[in-house]
Amino acid sequence: MTTTSPVTIRRARRDDVGAIVAMLADDRLGSARERIEDPLPESYFRAFEAVDRDPNIQLVVAESADGIVVGCLQLCVLPGLSSQGASRGLIEDVRVASHCRSQGIGEQLVQWAVAEARAKNCKLVELLTHQTRVDAQRFYVRLGFAASHVGMTLRF
Amino acid sequence: MTTTSPVTIRRARRDDVGAIVAMLADDRLGSARERIEDPLPESYFRAFEAVDRDPNIQLVVAESADGIVVGCLQLCVLPGLSSQGASRGLIEDVRVASHCRSQGIGEQLVQWAVAEARAKNCKLVELLTHQTRVDAQRFYVRLGFAASHVGMTLRF
Repeated sequence: MTTTSPVTIRRARRDDVGAIVAMLADDRLGSARERIEDPLPESYFRAFEAVDRDPNIQLVVAESADGIVVGCLQLCVLPGLSSQGASRGLIEDVRVASHCRSQGIGEQLVQWAVAEARAKNCKLVELLTHQTRVDAQRFYVRLGFAASHVGMTLRF
Repeated sequence: MTTTSPVTIRRARRDDVGAIVAMLADDRLGSARERIEDPLPESYFRAFEAVDRDPNIQLVVAESADGIVVGCLQLCVLPGLSSQGASRGLIEDVRVASHCRSQGIGEQLVQWAVAEARAKNCKLVELLTHQTRVDAQRFYVRLGFAASHVGMTLRF
């Protein structure tokens, strides 16, 4: 059975960057890509500033009742000509702290993003999830997503 | 054998919208989604203005030697915290006019986008291509992309 923990979803602040990066690193694929140091590399804060000032991007965190950051998600609303000039919502960097999984927190984050994309007149929400993240794919299908596309990536 | 037609890749202008929408509609999946009318629905022009004023988005066209628009591509450069605060390039709406396929125009467009994303310090370029577009997947693999992810979509 899945218990649901009520969380507050709010815009990320500069002082959440450490908690967000810790969640990005606490992951099989993410651990090789991040650098957890004290202080954190300045590149994370520069990226936060760029995200924070971009009107098309919302980086949000899920905060537990006792004020702890336990999840994050980034939503970009992107205009484009296709589908009669519809905007698209792109969901990225969905993470839930490992000790807080299976409590419905990821679902609350994704449902927030879907509602937000709808409110901003998107006709489509899309995301890429690694081929090996079979549980994540099942999770998104349960929320109404279709595994309709192949996500192709080129890393430099 | 593939012949290569030299094209000029340039920023799209408002008077290219008709040619771009015609290419989006001239497609098995796109034909049901677009509305080709004269004049074109205003929603396309509103979307063009939103794209055109967004500093993170570049909508480009491929123009043939005789000044005809024969291809298009949209590149979004998106900041984010993951991968040490690296930006990502998202490629969307890649189309080549049906009478100009297999001439290397799509490759020139995608290579332009990859070079541009690199120049803007992206560490990753990503895109979604429909599961049924097997030729497109082969094309991207030939250009160095990996079919590493599942692209999940939710249409409203």
